[in-house]
Amino acid sequence: MPMFFTREDSMRYAIVGSGAVGGLYGGMMAHHGKDVHFLLRSDFDHVRENGMRIDSVNGDFVLSNPNVYQRPEDMPRCDLVIVALKSTNNAMLADTLPKVLADDGIVLTLQNGLDVEADCVAAAPGHAVMGGCCFLCSNKLGPGHIHHLDYGRIVFGGYEFIGQVDRIEKLGKQIADDMQASGIDANWTEDLPAARWRKLMWNVPFNGLSVVLDASTDAIIGCPASRTLADRIIREVHAGAAFCGVSIDESAIEKTMRHTETMVPYDSSMRLDFLNGRPMEIEAILGNPLRAVERRLADRNADSAEKLAHPMPSVKMLREQLQFLDSRPDTASNLSG
Amino acid sequence: MPMFFTREDSMRYAIVGSGAVGGLYGGMMAHHGKDVHFLLRSDFDHVRENGMRIDSVNGDFVLSNPNVYQRPEDMPRCDLVIVALKSTNNAMLADTLPKVLADDGIVLTLQNGLDVEADCVAAAPGHAVMGGCCFLCSNKLGPGHIHHLDYGRIVFGGYEFIGQVDRIEKLGKQIADDMQASGIDANWTEDLPAARWRKLMWNVPFNGLSVVLDASTDAIIGCPASRTLADRIIREVHAGAAFCGVSIDESAIEKTMRHTETMVPYDSSMRLDFLNGRPMEIEAILGNPLRAVERRLADRNADSAEKLAHPMPSVKMLREQLQFLDSRPDTASNLSG
Repeated sequence: MPMFFTREDSMRYAIVGSGAVGGLYGGMMAHHGKDVHFLLRSDFDHVRENGMRIDSVNGDFVLSNPNVYQRPEDMPRCDLVIVALKSTNNAMLADTLPKVLADDGIVLTLQNGLDVEADCVAAAPGHAVMGGCCFLCSNKLGPGHIHHLDYGRIVFGGYEFIGQVDRIEKLGKQIADDMQASGIDANWTEDLPAARWRKLMWNVPFNGLSVVLDASTDAIIGCPASRTLADRIIREVHAGAAFCGVSIDESAIEKTMRHTETMVPYDSSMRLDFLNGRPMEIEAILGNPLRAVERRLADRNADSAEKLAHPMPSVKMLREQLQFLDSRPDTASNLSG
Repeated sequence: MPMFFTREDSMRYAIVGSGAVGGLYGGMMAHHGKDVHFLLRSDFDHVRENGMRIDSVNGDFVLSNPNVYQRPEDMPRCDLVIVALKSTNNAMLADTLPKVLADDGIVLTLQNGLDVEADCVAAAPGHAVMGGCCFLCSNKLGPGHIHHLDYGRIVFGGYEFIGQVDRIEKLGKQIADDMQASGIDANWTEDLPAARWRKLMWNVPFNGLSVVLDASTDAIIGCPASRTLADRIIREVHAGAAFCGVSIDESAIEKTMRHTETMVPYDSSMRLDFLNGRPMEIEAILGNPLRAVERRLADRNADSAEKLAHPMPSVKMLREQLQFLDSRPDTASNLSG
């Protein structure tokens, strides 16, 4: 039974998508006594019998009897629903969120990419929606078994305030407190778009190129040609953010490259998806930023006699290449063979 | 012995690079009684013992005793030296051409790409240089064994006239006559740059994308995303030509795509090189057109206050991706595995 269930001001949390991200953060919060409820699909039977196992760089633990559910209608109504599905599974949100959210419940999506919150807004009309960027290395090793290798910071902020900016910011800080009390380095931001675009400066080049070039990050930056290309893509994303009115300090360009140089050789989540034959988050990570830029471009070109150049031509091409690879039924086996 | 060796006005031909292109065309000319001399490297012993075998869509034949040589210094001086090496082997031209060329001998390079003639100009100073585009499907199956599957047209013209435009054009037409008399659909052009750029409109997108996407031409144009990308690259090459002062009718854009749609599924030469672990002709096919465009761009940007956009951004990215793949020792085995 949850420990603080009866505390007046405590929040009830739902985790939708209990993989490498949702399983880890939800597991840490449950382990620290927060009131957490997990929606599971294929892992349900295994976790009900065996619990959840978290092997973490910060210390291993097992949740022997977590609150798990197989259907959203079986769950209690929750104050915060954390969405940590792959965004390629967002079609299930419309059936899930309305059944799990309390009347004034809030959604927090921890998915990768830009404007992934829009799917939650559409699936839970009238509810506030927050978005968060996670900086962590974590894998799901098997049913109910998460391996947390490194990092873990969350930067999250408001996306859809439903006119209640003050209330949402106050709740955001309360959620950050709950997470920090559970050992999670969670930080509320008042500028979610800047956090999103800042993370895209890494995700777009290194997720995308790692798939198209069949390479890990160290191989990409170890070759002058692909390093030049990665650098140009980083600059394009930075320029794309500015084009959309999101200002990021220029020092972030160099920091992104330097950070990647000092990382251990790393397979991006998109590459792991590709190699394992799973759909890739192409639209969340590349498609949505391109759409944001192209909407502005269309507006500005309509205003002016002169046609402006596309600020992210390499991102556009990278997306087309990924879409091709995503559409090939035989590609994963080609590359992992 | 060559049949027309003593004829006053007959030309003596050397073939440097007796693979799918040089072996086929040189073989056809020798078969029709022209005075042809082949420089061979690894195939020398085999061809001396077994002759050359051409399996052609137009009829099979064997040259039982062709004029073959292992070293350029053993060859007679020739009026026309046809260069049909891979351009990645052009370093050997400086040692070869001066030993094989007659005093007023001419070089004709049938290599793919743009400005590949410059290597011949540098290797044979004082000699005129012609370049030709070949439109053929032909493979080398083994030592001295060529398989000619389809097509065969050559369009060739002058590149370095050494001030003798009239003489070179006259000789060009004589060479075209000799080739036509040997069953080769050879055509002299007075606009070699247009022929080169026109061929690049196919070679750049379909050689490049077939390697990066690990796909045949029919797969590339069968997926909307990669078809859009291929179409944009065709348009970029067309625009790059115009930027360099080479005008190609706009109908060529649509023709290139339509032609590819009706082709049988085809592995480009660059893809075959890549899958077989051979170096790819990246610089001839993508690097030189980019350099031509970027020289002009630098000139124009120096002239004007406004910085012009790069006319071939996707070609630039494609080249960087190919350079990365070319630099990986393990890539060929990855993809063919």
